[in-house]
Amino acid sequence: MTTTDDRGAPRSRPDIEQWYRDLQQRFCGAIAGLDGSASFVSERWDRPGGGGGISMQLTGGKVIERGSVNFSAVWGEVPERMSESLASESPEFYATGLSVIVHPLNPYAPTFHANLRFFSAGREWFGGGADLTPSYIYEDDARHFHGVLRDVCHRHPIADYPTWKGQCDEYFWLPHRQEARGVGGVFFDHLVDDLDAVWLFQRDFGDSLIEAYAPIVETRKNQPYGKKERHWQMVRRGRYVEFNLVWDRGTRFGLETGGRTESILGSLPPIARWEEPVKVESGSNEEKTLNFLRSAPTEWVE
Amino acid sequence: MTTTDDRGAPRSRPDIEQWYRDLQQRFCGAIAGLDGSASFVSERWDRPGGGGGISMQLTGGKVIERGSVNFSAVWGEVPERMSESLASESPEFYATGLSVIVHPLNPYAPTFHANLRFFSAGREWFGGGADLTPSYIYEDDARHFHGVLRDVCHRHPIADYPTWKGQCDEYFWLPHRQEARGVGGVFFDHLVDDLDAVWLFQRDFGDSLIEAYAPIVETRKNQPYGKKERHWQMVRRGRYVEFNLVWDRGTRFGLETGGRTESILGSLPPIARWEEPVKVESGSNEEKTLNFLRSAPTEWVE
Repeated sequence: MTTTDDRGAPRSRPDIEQWYRDLQQRFCGAIAGLDGSASFVSERWDRPGGGGGISMQLTGGKVIERGSVNFSAVWGEVPERMSESLASESPEFYATGLSVIVHPLNPYAPTFHANLRFFSAGREWFGGGADLTPSYIYEDDARHFHGVLRDVCHRHPIADYPTWKGQCDEYFWLPHRQEARGVGGVFFDHLVDDLDAVWLFQRDFGDSLIEAYAPIVETRKNQPYGKKERHWQMVRRGRYVEFNLVWDRGTRFGLETGGRTESILGSLPPIARWEEPVKVESGSNEEKTLNFLRSAPTEWVE
Repeated sequence: MTTTDDRGAPRSRPDIEQWYRDLQQRFCGAIAGLDGSASFVSERWDRPGGGGGISMQLTGGKVIERGSVNFSAVWGEVPERMSESLASESPEFYATGLSVIVHPLNPYAPTFHANLRFFSAGREWFGGGADLTPSYIYEDDARHFHGVLRDVCHRHPIADYPTWKGQCDEYFWLPHRQEARGVGGVFFDHLVDDLDAVWLFQRDFGDSLIEAYAPIVETRKNQPYGKKERHWQMVRRGRYVEFNLVWDRGTRFGLETGGRTESILGSLPPIARWEEPVKVESGSNEEKTLNFLRSAPTEWVE
């Protein structure tokens, strides 16, 4: 059954899937455009229990070291582990979503992550979010990113930038490092009420992601850097790996329930470093970034 | 109270600690000797709840890219999470141990991991193990390593090489990759009976580790390699990171209970890569290694 919102946007499963797939194409186009040299390679995959997806990967570009834009639409019986977290009596589930991760080559250009998802198991809901992980924090970049996300939230009465910004800060926290993963963004889940309005928001949010991220990469992509900055970027990417493998609920859930490893771990950076303890020079940009990440969440925009 | 075995080896907590610390020194000496250029740096740390440790790290050697040999002796109230896994009514625990991890620079030289531990919480027990993780499997190396471990087990009636070898294969398995981490070794835990005999075995086992590993590094450390082999080594190290952060019970337990992050993650390789999917040429040494890791466990020695 197709439902439409009061402004006529269709909200059937095929419509949602189609919209996510279109956004996947647009996102890949924008990222490949930023890069100018490499292009995305797509791969279709099937899920044995029902459904499948399309992975799009770009690697080894001049600007983008790895970009991964993954669409999936899966359904079937609710796996045992999932039923606990769903708290649903429904024996069947359906989930579609788009996840985006971009690791630029230049250490001054931040890593970007976003996802959008629609879930149905007894009830239906939307979730999603977007966040930015710089190796070097530029306050202008963080303000631009949060400003775009705040603006899209302000256009929708069902959206709540301050709460969702706080949820993002809370989620992307590494307790074992006492550090934030990056400068955050917004994170929302289980939006079950007024789904037509949520779906309108979700599309506006998706449409705004390129505007939130691409100008930052444009600004940073040609900024000169040396071995020291590249080394630091790899150390920071080590933290990214730690977050995803130790704390990220989606990654752990996926790996523990036999999800598609190549897609789940497509979020990992192409190359990462570990050194213990990390040494940073007093007064350096590396120290400044660490201080931001270790301090209480920053309010980047009003 | 000091207990002694029938051959007079003291087994008080200070004796066990002292023996582990001596082995730490011997191991560091052997590894630094293999390297010939770099040396270990030591750091003492205190645990707020009781006890502490000595971390020894070597980084950036000509032969050893990172070596981490950590001694600890900690005690105090049983943390809530620990009490579940201990199934003990004792409000106090004591644990001492030595963990060793060596990541050589040469891709043909395997990574080595071992640990030895003594635990007391109501009951007392010993545990430990050693395993080898090559990026390129040389059957001779695996046979040498397993041969030494088998021989030390055969010298002690309380030891059981076939069972412990199987436990190691089972433990160091990456379900999400359907791959073994490496060629295994032995893994034993909760050895609670006949502690005097177990302590004799534990020391013989500890004494044998250098003999099990060092000759392999000697053989491989000057074997010529190129960018391709280094790249493959980093991809394999990515799997090592995945194992430690996603599946290793000790790492997860440590991070989730607020353990000392620098020590817990001292096991991670200095640099790692991810690429999805991994491409290996048909008939190559990389493919041969993957085939070993994906096949049923290999019986390396009789």
